[in-house]
Formats: sequence, structure tokens, C-alpha cells
Amino acid sequence: MLGGMPDGAADIVVMKFGGTSVAGAEQIKRAAGRIVAARERGKRVVAVLSARGKTTDELVAAAHEISERPVAREMDMLLSTGERISCALCAMAIHDMGHEAISLTGSQAGIVTDSSHTKARIIDVRADRIRQALEQDRIVLVAGFQGVSTDSRDVTTLGRGGSDTTAVALAAALDAEVCEIYTDVRGVYSADPRIVPDARMLDQISFEEMLEMAASGAGVLQLRSVEYARNHGVRIHCRSSFEDGPGTLVVSEEEAMENPFITGVTHSDAEARVTLTGLRDEPGVAGRIFGALADANVNVDVIIQNEPVGDDQLADLSFTVDRGELTLAREVIDGLGDVAVQVKAEEQIGKVSVVGAGMRSHPGVAAKVFETLGSEGINIEMISTSPIKISCVIGADRVKDAVLALHAAFELGDDAIRPEDGTGNTTSTVAG
Amino acid sequence: MLGGMPDGAADIVVMKFGGTSVAGAEQIKRAAGRIVAARERGKRVVAVLSARGKTTDELVAAAHEISERPVAREMDMLLSTGERISCALCAMAIHDMGHEAISLTGSQAGIVTDSSHTKARIIDVRADRIRQALEQDRIVLVAGFQGVSTDSRDVTTLGRGGSDTTAVALAAALDAEVCEIYTDVRGVYSADPRIVPDARMLDQISFEEMLEMAASGAGVLQLRSVEYARNHGVRIHCRSSFEDGPGTLVVSEEEAMENPFITGVTHSDAEARVTLTGLRDEPGVAGRIFGALADANVNVDVIIQNEPVGDDQLADLSFTVDRGELTLAREVIDGLGDVAVQVKAEEQIGKVSVVGAGMRSHPGVAAKVFETLGSEGINIEMISTSPIKISCVIGADRVKDAVLALHAAFELGDDAIRPEDGTGNTTSTVAG
Repeated sequence: MLGGMPDGAADIVVMKFGGTSVAGAEQIKRAAGRIVAARERGKRVVAVLSARGKTTDELVAAAHEISERPVAREMDMLLSTGERISCALCAMAIHDMGHEAISLTGSQAGIVTDSSHTKARIIDVRADRIRQALEQDRIVLVAGFQGVSTDSRDVTTLGRGGSDTTAVALAAALDAEVCEIYTDVRGVYSADPRIVPDARMLDQISFEEMLEMAASGAGVLQLRSVEYARNHGVRIHCRSSFEDGPGTLVVSEEEAMENPFITGVTHSDAEARVTLTGLRDEPGVAGRIFGALADANVNVDVIIQNEPVGDDQLADLSFTVDRGELTLAREVIDGLGDVAVQVKAEEQIGKVSVVGAGMRSHPGVAAKVFETLGSEGINIEMISTSPIKISCVIGADRVKDAVLALHAAFELGDDAIRPEDGTGNTTSTVAG
Repeated sequence: MLGGMPDGAADIVVMKFGGTSVAGAEQIKRAAGRIVAARERGKRVVAVLSARGKTTDELVAAAHEISERPVAREMDMLLSTGERISCALCAMAIHDMGHEAISLTGSQAGIVTDSSHTKARIIDVRADRIRQALEQDRIVLVAGFQGVSTDSRDVTTLGRGGSDTTAVALAAALDAEVCEIYTDVRGVYSADPRIVPDARMLDQISFEEMLEMAASGAGVLQLRSVEYARNHGVRIHCRSSFEDGPGTLVVSEEEAMENPFITGVTHSDAEARVTLTGLRDEPGVAGRIFGALADANVNVDVIIQNEPVGDDQLADLSFTVDRGELTLAREVIDGLGDVAVQVKAEEQIGKVSVVGAGMRSHPGVAAKVFETLGSEGINIEMISTSPIKISCVIGADRVKDAVLALHAAFELGDDAIRPEDGTGNTTSTVAG
């Protein structure tokens, strides 16, 4: 698989480096070193870079110094500069290592999007210029997170974390053998290692599990990029840019060599809940509420509605959102007028989720989750499930306890005897 | 000239704001206010912006953290982001003032250049997109200092101060009525007001005089932009972005209403001199030396060569360069081998110049310059002249004295009786 191939036939590798991996000169040189090493192993390399460390935050702050509601088109023109800076600097570093490199903007790289500024979707990848540069034996650096709108030729951005999607989209268009995502963590873990000391790094995970993990709090990969990878069959490899190690492969379920019972425990302690009491139980009320929230780009997570009680047929409706979107969600609800007798918001809401493809064939996982939380005295306020995930909304102050208890109950730790294969798993120990 | 015109026929004004004029949120809003005011007077406005304050310096520093000799193509990709940031932020400010604005990169604005990265020259302006936006009643903001290369579609930059050239080139292409250059000074002065307290702000100046002023030390306008304006007949108006005032118009000599004897005194105290003694006086030696310096992009200013003396026909050759280029100039000379017996460098060299179109018809200006400096005890080390300029190379420590003496000798001050019109000039007093 490594080296030795004639250039024309060499496999293409897409490598993506996140903000912490290009934060300063030292990190950029390290990323350049990884890129050059892959080239010297005989690969043709396309690297997608994020903006350096806090650059995007600083640009956002500069915009808000000017305007309370910066116009979206100009926000995109502004924010797209961060990734270009990273790419230009990294190209300089690669040149000093004796290789030809060329940096391209999203537009130059052929990332064509719709016109939804600040949250554009990729609709085409016209990678001719990249292919041409690869044929000229150049390493290609592409500014992540951005594209050009097909109708107005304006700079667009894909939303926060969009560089993952850029990388996966390029890997799909170029038929790359792998899309390597370099971050400041070693891979995907069975739980957040900051909470669970014996959290196990996963050798591999299926797209479906990764989607549930990303959606329920694992921050390694952006949800959209995993969806894109699944839909286009792109193998993702999550790796650390700061040390060598096996990392985690995200592959199709068929390709996954093991199919564990439970893959991991994810969590979020930054949610909030809105409860509407005395909601009139008539057709269309929920549609109006969640339609208005969607129009305002509020991501609603878990929803429950009680049975209407009494003669007046009034029901209660609760839903959770990211805490940062609570104010906006309340504004939206208030703007709807008299949908409910009372609207209540709680800020200290958390969520814990258990994810695993093996859950499909193992009944009783939900029961075990509820029992485990119950024995810890943790009150479950809302429940949401999918075929491979169980999420429980709990108080934010109990999230840490819940993660530890569930991780232990399902014996996910590095030293635990795993129920599926009956052996201690030692292959995930990270080298270097 | 102001307001009231139907939109389709409205005159186009190009306004250029320098780095200090867009340094922070407050300055950007002020620039936006000036742009909007022009629009509300009925003009169609194209504004060219520089990078904010120290942005370019910071980006250059970031590049040098990565590489001692950053590759030029990537330097252009890097540096071009600064002006884009300014434009996006200014567009946001204009939107908040109730006007439609659109920011364009140099490439989007149709600034087509050659492929000389970091010092590209404009070879075409394809302003269709700007015209289209103006027709849609939008204010157009263009990132200065940059373009796109015609052959490789790469981002190029025009060199330091290139935003002036962007503005003038757009004014020419759009047939604008004027190109307004907003900086942190009120206009063009008869001498540097920091040295000469009664320096007079000029109401107008001819292209030819402005070229000599810019070339000999006046920092208000970039030399290339004045050349471009002269060649394309673009009226330049130098104004302060921080206060209202008449500013200085740069116009053709025919258009200039007054043709003063002497226009101004300029200076530089940051020059250096290289002297080659024992230079073999044979054909081609000077050509080799200055050819090599030109290849290395060293700008040579004043050159003198002594008569060869003695049987061995050895001559002495001296030339001046910007002090910042002295090391490079010495390296170039050393690289030529045995062109001279000795190479000597002096760092503390200055230059003072007297500029005026009226000089052509007034003999005796040179004599008066030499007498004035002589009576101050200032030693003239080299002399260079043009039909409308006399430059004297002197010690850097005597530059200030020389400027004051010459400004007084030619009676250029605000309160002086001017020889041409015989009246005290009071019209240049700056309002506000």
C-alpha cells in the first residue's frame, strides 16, 4: 500500500488539518511535514486546512464591532480569508521542504455551492484544477469551509466545521483512497477521555454509529461530513496531528470487521429545554412551532408531548436546543402569539447517549441504561431513541456521573473484558 | 456637479481609503459614512480599500515565521486577504446605513495582471461585474493591491501601495469623474509639515510635478498610480479621511490653473550610498553593475561616475539606494567579483529636492539651490536633475536644515508673498 508506485498511478490522499493543527508557525510546519511524508511515500496529496486557531473567532468579533447583524454575503467574504492564510503559510513551509505546493481558494478548487451564505451546501465539485496540479507533481492545499456560489459567483462558507465537509467532498470527487482528518485528539473514543479515564480509542466505527456519535456530542467530526462520506463511500481516518498512532477508521458497516454491542457513550452538558404548558391540542400547532424554529435555524433535538388532559384538551410540549440558541428559540415562540398558556425555559440541561450498531440485535439495552441511571439516582427527564442509539435528557449537573456509570455498566473501558470477543482489547493502545 | 441626477446617468466616483483610514471599527464606519454621503449626493461609488492598519505587516511577519524566503505566489495569496477583510467589514457598515453594498476581490473586480507575483502590473481591467453592480444601485467595494494573473488565474499583488494603482486603474476603466485618495494627511504640501511648520497645502499640482514629488520622497501618493493617472487622464483628488477640506487635485499641466515657479521641497533621510573606487573604465562595466542591481529589484536613485584618471584608466562610481536595500545591493556587487578595487558603503545619506514645472522657464533655480545650501554650510555630495526637479544628495543629519532653508528661500510658505501671483495665498487654509 505504501510507496513505489509510478506517479501517474499513485493513489490520492486527502488530508485535513483543523484549527489547532495549524494554530502557529510550529504547528503549520508539523502539518507540512506530515503532508510531505505522505508525498514521499508515493501518494498524491490534497490537503484541506482550517483557519488558524482563533482566527475565525477574531474575524467574527471584528464583524460584530461593525454591525450587530452583519450581512451574510460579507460575513462569508470576511471569514473565508482565515483558511486562505493557513494554506498560503503551509505552502511556504512545504516549499522549504523541497516540494512544489500550490494553495487554492475554495473557488479555485472548484467547490461549487448553493447561495445560502454562512451555511452553504456543496452542489458540485469541479476538481479539474486540482487534478491538473496533481499531474504537475504538486501538492495541493485547499482552503476549507468555503466555496463559490454557482449563480452569483460569490464566496460562500459551509458553516462552522465545514472544512471536514470540504475534505470529504474532495476525497469523493477525486476518488481518494482515504480522507484523513487530523485534529488535536487521537481518534474517536468510547467516551470523552476527559471524563472517563479508561475510555478506549476505537480502531474503527461505522458511518451510522459515527453519525449518532457526532449528533449526540462527540466533537471529533462534523455531522455533515460523516453524512457526505457515507453517501459517497469515502473512508475517513481520524488521526492526531501531534503524534503518530493508529487513529480511528470510519467505514461502512459491511466493511467493519467487528460489530460491537455498544460503541460509545456521548454527552452534552450545554443544552436547554423549552416547555410549553397549556398548549392547545389541535392539528397544526406543533407544525407551526417547529416550522418557525426551523425557519430561524434553531436546531431542535429531543421533543416530547404529553397526552392532552381535561375537557379543554390542553397538552404540554417540551423540546431541547443548544443552550446558545435558547434566546432565539424563545423569541421565535413568543413571536407566534398565543400557542400556549405558559412558556418556560430551563438552562441547565444535559444529555447522555449510548450508541452501538449491535443494539439492533440485543434487546434490553434501554432497560440497562435506565437501571444504571436509576441506581445512580439520576432522574431521566426525556428519552429519545434510534435503532442504534438511546439518549436521555438529564440535569446538566449529573452528566459526568451518568457518562461514567454507563461507560462502566457496558464495560467499554480499555481494560474491561469486552462481551463480544471475550478478550481484553489491547490493540487500541496509541503508539508514540 | 452635486446631486439630483437620474441614476442611470450619475457620475462614477472612485474613492480609495488607505490603511490608517480603515484601521479599526470606528475608522471603517467613518469611511463608510463618506462613501454613503457620496452616494446620497447622487454619485455611483466604487471604493477601493487597503488592508487595515498593521494587517499587512502582521501577515508578512507570519510568513517570515514560516520561511526565510516565502515563495512569491503564496505571499500574494496570503497578503491579498488583508484588503478583503477591510472590504467585507466596510460593506457591513454600509448595509447598516441603509445602502446596498457588495465587496469584490481584485479578481472579481476584473483587475487582470501579469504573473509577476508580489509586483504584478495591471494589464487589463474587465469591469463588467462592477458596472453590473452599479446598475443594480449597489455601492461597490474593491479589495485594493491585488488582481488575478491572466495566464494561471492566480492571485497576484501589485506591491506596497498598490491600492492607489487599483483605484486609478478602476477610475480609468470606468471613466470616473475623479479618483479620490483618502489618507491621514490633508493633501499634498509644499514640504513635509512635520519639518516645515508653515508648509502650504497645494490646491492643485500637475501630474509631472506630482511624479517628481512622489519619486523624491513625498509619501502621499504611490509613484505608479500617478504614472497610470497621467497616462490615462485620471483626475486624482488627495483628501483627508479624518476631516473635511479642499485637499489637493492632481491634474494635467494644461488643466492646472496656476503654474507656480516652484511647487515644493521634498526630502528623504533614509538613503545609503555605495561607492566603487578603482572601477575599471571599460565598456559594459556599468551595464553589468546596474543590470545585476535591477535583476535583484534594487532601486538605484542617483548615480555619478568620475572621469577615469591615471594610466590605468580606473574610475570611481557612486550610487544611492534606499537604506533598506543596502545589504542586498552590496551582496549583488560582491557577487560580480572583481569590478572594482574597493567597495564602500555609507548609511547616513539623505536627499533634498526642489520640484516645480515653472523651473523650465526660470533659469537660475539650480544656482539658488546650491547657494542656499552653501550658505547653510551643507555639503552637496551628488546632484541629479530633471527639467522640473533638482535633487541634492547630502548628509542625512542635514536634511531637516536643508528643507527649511530651501522652503524659505523659494518663499513657499503659507504666509509668504508668492512670486508668481504677488498675493498672499490664503485659499489653502483647511476647513474643519
